Amino acid sequence: MRKTIIGVMGGGDANKKDIKLAYDLGALIAKEGWVLLNGGRSAGIMEASSKGCKEHGGITVGILPGRDSSSTSKYIDIQILTGMGDARNYINVLSSDVVIACKGGAGTISEIALALKNGKKVILLDFDIDDTFEEYRNSGLLLKAQSPEEAIKLTKNILSVSGVGN
Amino acid sequence: MRKTIIGVMGGGDANKKDIKLAYDLGALIAKEGWVLLNGGRSAGIMEASSKGCKEHGGITVGILPGRDSSSTSKYIDIQILTGMGDARNYINVLSSDVVIACKGGAGTISEIALALKNGKKVILLDFDIDDTFEEYRNSGLLLKAQSPEEAIKLTKNILSVSGVGN
Amino acid sequence: MRKTIIGVMGGGDANKKDIKLAYDLGALIAKEGWVLLNGGRSAGIMEASSKGCKEHGGITVGILPGRDSSSTSKYIDIQILTGMGDARNYINVLSSDVVIACKGGAGTISEIALALKNGKKVILLDFDIDDTFEEYRNSGLLLKAQSPEEAIKLTKNILSVSGVGN
Amino acid sequence: MRKTIIGVMGGGDANKKDIKLAYDLGALIAKEGWVLLNGGRSAGIMEASSKGCKEHGGITVGILPGRDSSSTSKYIDIQILTGMGDARNYINVLSSDVVIACKGGAGTISEIALALKNGKKVILLDFDIDDTFEEYRNSGLLLKAQSPEEAIKLTKNILSVSGVGN
Repeated sequence: MRKTIIGVMGGGDANKKDIKLAYDLGALIAKEGWVLLNGGRSAGIMEASSKGCKEHGGITVGILPGRDSSSTSKYIDIQILTGMGDARNYINVLSSDVVIACKGGAGTISEIALALKNGKKVILLDFDIDDTFEEYRNSGLLLKAQSPEEAIKLTKNILSVSGVGN
Repeated sequence: MRKTIIGVMGGGDANKKDIKLAYDLGALIAKEGWVLLNGGRSAGIMEASSKGCKEHGGITVGILPGRDSSSTSKYIDIQILTGMGDARNYINVLSSDVVIACKGGAGTISEIALALKNGKKVILLDFDIDDTFEEYRNSGLLLKAQSPEEAIKLTKNILSVSGVGN
Repeated sequence: MRKTIIGVMGGGDANKKDIKLAYDLGALIAKEGWVLLNGGRSAGIMEASSKGCKEHGGITVGILPGRDSSSTSKYIDIQILTGMGDARNYINVLSSDVVIACKGGAGTISEIALALKNGKKVILLDFDIDDTFEEYRNSGLLLKAQSPEEAIKLTKNILSVSGVGN
Repeated sequence: MRKTIIGVMGGGDANKKDIKLAYDLGALIAKEGWVLLNGGRSAGIMEASSKGCKEHGGITVGILPGRDSSSTSKYIDIQILTGMGDARNYINVLSSDVVIACKGGAGTISEIALALKNGKKVILLDFDIDDTFEEYRNSGLLLKAQSPEEAIKLTKNILSVSGVGN
């Protein structure tokens, strides 16, 4: 019964273009029947991807840094309160069957790094940071996509090989 | 859209009577439309409450201590992998709108203690450990129930006062 | 070169008698050449045990719940900032070769429970909560002392058997 | 009484040149009377920096990912067992007054990112990854050094401004 969980990482600050990408990505995740997991806050990529997912009938899980609901996006169905600050980034990536990283700052980079360190496949969506993780790009753990559609296609390939969610 | 989350704590080892109580509790949580959250492992109170919930159409969230799925109950829908061992007990209680504690050992007692310390209402279900937390029983944070039905009734009262899930 | 670490747990609120016990315990830990570890805050048993240790030439380690120094006792030498709230209680007990628990509330009880769950020996110092953990008292993991001197004697016995710090 | 803590990050795998840099850095930290904090394992930059510090009379603190001593470097004085895997990287950087990052892989990059995200000054020692964190380099939070001596000089400047350890 275990559901496939797709983690969407990305900045709390984001420009219009990236907000649109994240919204569209959330919508596509919903259409696939996957659960969308993110950092849960009502900001940037988190808010946009949750909104896109919810407005297309999906389920959203937010892994919050704090101990209460004050910063939680209204588009989060299942709110996990960790009370652990950015240590929760580790939980974000461990809990995701595949990690898709939109543009972001140091927080997002920490999630990409923790994911790769722990053997998770990461798809960079219009985020040119792959040179930093060259070793993982070469080994095939780090992939790139230019559109939400391409990210979904790559995710399907990964899931079909790993057997997650089947 | 945020769903009400009811945490069900209790031992990984449990006798037949407690397994039945946990199963029935899970079933009643499903019928109320609440999400059931527990420690996620395929053992004792965790397995039984997840099974009861799933077999009655509910949604289950498991907060796992490890980094992979090897010990996850097959009755868990949404698997959160923390990789943090028993530190995840803190997340269990913070994420629950109400905590219901079935019989258990030191792990369960740590969850009751962490919940009370952080201002969460705890309902003991046929678990006579309230003398240990006398201060919290006196302040009304710690309650007792003798049956799953009574635990659900108390939970409804708490939720109606706190406004969670409305 | 690894130093023996003795964890001292106990309430942030404490009465005069318990403050004195904690101070004396800290002093005796210093005299043995052990490192004292506690929750690091400038309150109750934490402050008193750190003060007793420092005023007798010992070394103190504080495992803080927050992200900055604002609540750290001035008697802490080595400040570990976890930013993880009460999840740090798990670190407190894992890092201690032996745990000595003075009187406390739910936070202290969570530490005793987490320690026993993880196979750590716990000595209750004038804290009558052993009935709650009867199983562990019977197995010899949970011990009782009436004075700091007795707690130190029990600690020595445990260390000599386990070989820690030798 | 609080001691100044300098965090030394870097890979578990390291080549001869980086091992030498880390050893020399540890030695210089000891000579300054600062405490050296790292990930505590008996590998790579961790082992080398701890060894350099201990062989020059310093104090070392290791923040371990596991629950026991099996992977702890013999050059660690104070062993903090977190049982939290790579979530401990967050503790490493929060607890450091200044973070010095030697060459490393994804784990080290996660620490640099978490440090910068949380407002910690980071000095890259012969590690050309500053383009990844351009925003922080521009704001002065991320600095570069070519030698252990230069890293120490930068650290002194930071400490004199922040007042830590005075």
